Amino acid sequence: MKVKVGINGYGTIGKRVAYAVSKQDDMELIGVTKTKPDFEAYLARERGIPVYAASEEFLPRFEKAGFEVAGTLSDLLENVDVIVDATPGGMGAKNKALYEKAGVKAIFQGGEKAEVAQVSFVAQANYEKALGKDYVRVVSCNTTGLTRTLSALQEYIDYVYAVMIRRAADPNDSKRGPVNAITPSVTVPSHHGPDVQTVIPINIETMAFVVPTTLMHVHSVMIELKKPITREDVIDIFENTTRVLLFEKERGFESTAQLIEFARDLHREWNNLYEIAVWKESISVKGNRLFYIQAVHQESDVVPENVDAIRAMFEMADKWESIRKTNKSLGILK
Amino acid sequence: MKVKVGINGYGTIGKRVAYAVSKQDDMELIGVTKTKPDFEAYLARERGIPVYAASEEFLPRFEKAGFEVAGTLSDLLENVDVIVDATPGGMGAKNKALYEKAGVKAIFQGGEKAEVAQVSFVAQANYEKALGKDYVRVVSCNTTGLTRTLSALQEYIDYVYAVMIRRAADPNDSKRGPVNAITPSVTVPSHHGPDVQTVIPINIETMAFVVPTTLMHVHSVMIELKKPITREDVIDIFENTTRVLLFEKERGFESTAQLIEFARDLHREWNNLYEIAVWKESISVKGNRLFYIQAVHQESDVVPENVDAIRAMFEMADKWESIRKTNKSLGILK
Amino acid sequence: MKVKVGINGYGTIGKRVAYAVSKQDDMELIGVTKTKPDFEAYLARERGIPVYAASEEFLPRFEKAGFEVAGTLSDLLENVDVIVDATPGGMGAKNKALYEKAGVKAIFQGGEKAEVAQVSFVAQANYEKALGKDYVRVVSCNTTGLTRTLSALQEYIDYVYAVMIRRAADPNDSKRGPVNAITPSVTVPSHHGPDVQTVIPINIETMAFVVPTTLMHVHSVMIELKKPITREDVIDIFENTTRVLLFEKERGFESTAQLIEFARDLHREWNNLYEIAVWKESISVKGNRLFYIQAVHQESDVVPENVDAIRAMFEMADKWESIRKTNKSLGILK
Amino acid sequence: MKVKVGINGYGTIGKRVAYAVSKQDDMELIGVTKTKPDFEAYLARERGIPVYAASEEFLPRFEKAGFEVAGTLSDLLENVDVIVDATPGGMGAKNKALYEKAGVKAIFQGGEKAEVAQVSFVAQANYEKALGKDYVRVVSCNTTGLTRTLSALQEYIDYVYAVMIRRAADPNDSKRGPVNAITPSVTVPSHHGPDVQTVIPINIETMAFVVPTTLMHVHSVMIELKKPITREDVIDIFENTTRVLLFEKERGFESTAQLIEFARDLHREWNNLYEIAVWKESISVKGNRLFYIQAVHQESDVVPENVDAIRAMFEMADKWESIRKTNKSLGILK
Repeated sequence: MKVKVGINGYGTIGKRVAYAVSKQDDMELIGVTKTKPDFEAYLARERGIPVYAASEEFLPRFEKAGFEVAGTLSDLLENVDVIVDATPGGMGAKNKALYEKAGVKAIFQGGEKAEVAQVSFVAQANYEKALGKDYVRVVSCNTTGLTRTLSALQEYIDYVYAVMIRRAADPNDSKRGPVNAITPSVTVPSHHGPDVQTVIPINIETMAFVVPTTLMHVHSVMIELKKPITREDVIDIFENTTRVLLFEKERGFESTAQLIEFARDLHREWNNLYEIAVWKESISVKGNRLFYIQAVHQESDVVPENVDAIRAMFEMADKWESIRKTNKSLGILK
Repeated sequence: MKVKVGINGYGTIGKRVAYAVSKQDDMELIGVTKTKPDFEAYLARERGIPVYAASEEFLPRFEKAGFEVAGTLSDLLENVDVIVDATPGGMGAKNKALYEKAGVKAIFQGGEKAEVAQVSFVAQANYEKALGKDYVRVVSCNTTGLTRTLSALQEYIDYVYAVMIRRAADPNDSKRGPVNAITPSVTVPSHHGPDVQTVIPINIETMAFVVPTTLMHVHSVMIELKKPITREDVIDIFENTTRVLLFEKERGFESTAQLIEFARDLHREWNNLYEIAVWKESISVKGNRLFYIQAVHQESDVVPENVDAIRAMFEMADKWESIRKTNKSLGILK
Repeated sequence: MKVKVGINGYGTIGKRVAYAVSKQDDMELIGVTKTKPDFEAYLARERGIPVYAASEEFLPRFEKAGFEVAGTLSDLLENVDVIVDATPGGMGAKNKALYEKAGVKAIFQGGEKAEVAQVSFVAQANYEKALGKDYVRVVSCNTTGLTRTLSALQEYIDYVYAVMIRRAADPNDSKRGPVNAITPSVTVPSHHGPDVQTVIPINIETMAFVVPTTLMHVHSVMIELKKPITREDVIDIFENTTRVLLFEKERGFESTAQLIEFARDLHREWNNLYEIAVWKESISVKGNRLFYIQAVHQESDVVPENVDAIRAMFEMADKWESIRKTNKSLGILK
Repeated sequence: MKVKVGINGYGTIGKRVAYAVSKQDDMELIGVTKTKPDFEAYLARERGIPVYAASEEFLPRFEKAGFEVAGTLSDLLENVDVIVDATPGGMGAKNKALYEKAGVKAIFQGGEKAEVAQVSFVAQANYEKALGKDYVRVVSCNTTGLTRTLSALQEYIDYVYAVMIRRAADPNDSKRGPVNAITPSVTVPSHHGPDVQTVIPINIETMAFVVPTTLMHVHSVMIELKKPITREDVIDIFENTTRVLLFEKERGFESTAQLIEFARDLHREWNNLYEIAVWKESISVKGNRLFYIQAVHQESDVVPENVDAIRAMFEMADKWESIRKTNKSLGILK
């Protein structure tokens, strides 16, 4: 018996999760919702994925274009065991009543507040907490990225201070700017630190800046250590941490551009870099402080988390069985 | 018997041509050259592609990194029937003597002058001219893009004026700018017009500008007509022209960002968009002038041309047989 | 007696026109309107410029900040002879009724349709048409730029085809994108050509593209000639055309970045480059076609036009007297 | 008796220092050097500033263009009391021998190593150390920016960790990238921390990133406190610190774009923002940590430092007399 999965919102995250679900032998992709018949909708249909209108109000758009939908979200909800809500931030909370009414489990994304769900989730950090749950929130790309490396170092951490240099827009977004500016979040510390604490109990503060690039977020991480660790230890730990990869500037990884090129060279779908990329040369211990620099592919790092969340919610596999299964299906390197 | 192919220069174009060659059942990829052991070199090796040093002078770099090469360019040349020169512009001409000495056929790219080869090549325009030739130049991405659409309209053309808005750097290049400027080619008309004339005999003038983007070049084309044609005729012609695709803004293709997203949605390797993208809405006839806007994926549109050029040089297939074979192997939509 | 001038909308254009008005010995700046008490409002007040709320609905914002306004737009209108409407595109038409009711003359900007006013205005092209008029529209930055050079060549023009490469956002706008894309106007020809025809009767078609830069628009101009002209003639004409300057790449003007640097080196307020910049090397005649490339400083080229429009509307000076006066006051080079 | 000042290198910094020197009543600008006759050279000459060739090797360029120079650097050195070396990083050290031979004092910029001079200088931090010295290094824009705010807080500082988000290119540079990437300095901590220590003895570590913008650098500063301080105290201190200004997001300062707009609104020459801009809302104390965000105008913050350095070297004024004089002459707000 495969778990029947629906995707509400077939955009940047939704379409990647749909693809990932379709790669699992224990899941079945039942359908996706769209608000309008754009090229993403047409491509989904060409691939045999049933396309539903995200709500009745959007039906006229599809009718006008002569695009026949399989129904609306309500219809989709009748046919699934779990819905992955990949709608824009804040809408998930509004949609929750629909999911409850339909009696389906639901996964929310990091644009929602923690309160929307029973657990905020990063598979390698707290898979067990999501076992059997009805509502799980996969945290944001940035929180996922921080949690992956910080949870691996958790026992050494007294305090974390991370500065996040964020991409302004996704590659397929030609509306948002800035074209030429740096925009700080002047509320200091930023909300990202507390969000990590919804997953793992560490002492962390963050600051955030938006810059005119589309490829990846970059984190400058500084950790005050509770107990000594060497640079070599950290390298060793990261080499043994799933969904974290070390990259060397010496091999040509000078910027986020070459990290994405690596994903393109691997022929990853949508150049997904599911793994958090840590620059090996940047790992540095000075006194009781550890520094490193990591990059996060905002379009894809949460995708395997959604898959694992489904397995946890239906108790289909234990933690490492699920992670290994997901990794293998998506070509995640380790 | 498969044709043995070597690639001199495993960068943006070289790695794509290597991949394309590996997808052909009548070709065998023998090896590629690199000037340094960067991640592209490591990935090639991991995939079982023999890596050669681009010349003896680069051997120390590989030795220092403990990267064992299969030899140097000279060794590679001994084992191939044809070498695809994908070195930086102007180097191909210098390399030609080596190829002649080794007695191998050679394909050059558009960064070289037309004189380097016996024919300047775009498969759908002049495949036959390359039959049996020893030296063929696949023209630049821009010239290929112009030739594809203009050759389809050739009988209607009295005069073409094209303005080319060029991407400043490729996505994996984090050195070149500008960050915030528009740079014109002040030599007017630009060299691109005459370059089209090395392939098809049309009356054309061009102007060129560099802008801070990495995704695609865009061409604003205006044609003065020799005989009448309607907008619908042009749409019909383009719909029946290989390696040309129509895109509608109405379906969400608002900029080059969504064109590349389309290639990503197709899970094209490196988001290659081998086809020239014409905005359907932009096709417009006013009096005796035809206008349209097209976009060119500078990283990939010449890739199928290299494959077809090999077939022509070894007389392995006739024009449409080769084009269809190449298209099918690369997932080119039509 | 000085003409009393109010500015409705103290943004990019409005603040520059306010400054320019304050430099005229025959005009008096009475006040400006703002919709919110941002730093522009505070700076205006610090300089002794009365600040009015753009309408009553905005008063609470000022009150909340403790910023005392001089009144609202209605109050300002009671004290002026002419209002310069520099509100966002399309709002001017809505405001017109207020101006009519208050019995003040009004100048609109290029974001409004031509119908809003009795004449569409570029001083050197049609100053006389605005003499005594009550409603004048200063055309957009792009239309002004095209009209300045084309009107100088008018007798030679059979047909103009201009491709406009537009900046995505102004330097002080950190919201609008794209960050990394080229966005075409797929409605071809674009609306810019007909807009030039509201000022001078020439045969013109245009196409337009948005690119990720903030500094200037660039126009690639091609003219089909009605009668012969040489490159030297064109240089000569432009050298004798007011508000047009020739720049040489050879002297370091490689892109729009150096054009703006020139304005900065001149210590122009806001680095205004009131003059249209033509690259001298780009001027080229081939057969019956003339080509040239020009750049337009979107923030400032229309500023002197607003000043001249006021003089024409009040018949305060004849054409060249006004242009010379305005030029001198703003440091316009010729 | 005025001090005779020469400027070696009339680029981004050199031209601003030349301008600043010309505004001082106790200094005389004798001449500047250029390597080529570009528009900056022509403008200097038009303003009556003698232009010298930066060395004999560049004379042919000037001769070819018919640009008559006043001599070469050697000639300039004969006529000055002090030379401000504003050549590209690393060249100052090579030039030093010339200055020693000519017996003139010299000021170097932050692109040089500290060893080139007797003191590394930020006026408000260590003016007295430069009194009577022959060789002074004005530290880099980033180091100056950090030193200005940190020296004001020095007694409270136990440890500083600053992350620097750097602009990729200056506004007039259309060559350097990246167009779309974030480039980390993977050598951690970066060299900027130790550079601050050449001016003030504090415990500081830094990390640095390059992003695709031209306007300003931004620093995310975290300070571990030696003794308690409140947010209000910090605001108070910064309000009383020269060459530091507080900006409020609430007044529209959302990004570096609006900070530069403020300088433009002030009609500052080249939109210089000599002052370090601290976002008021970002100042935050949590436990024993103080956070704030500041922006540095890389083109101009060191300009007043060069002027003050001259006064110190010739013992023309005491610290606050010089700072006040410089501030007043350049319109520095406090």
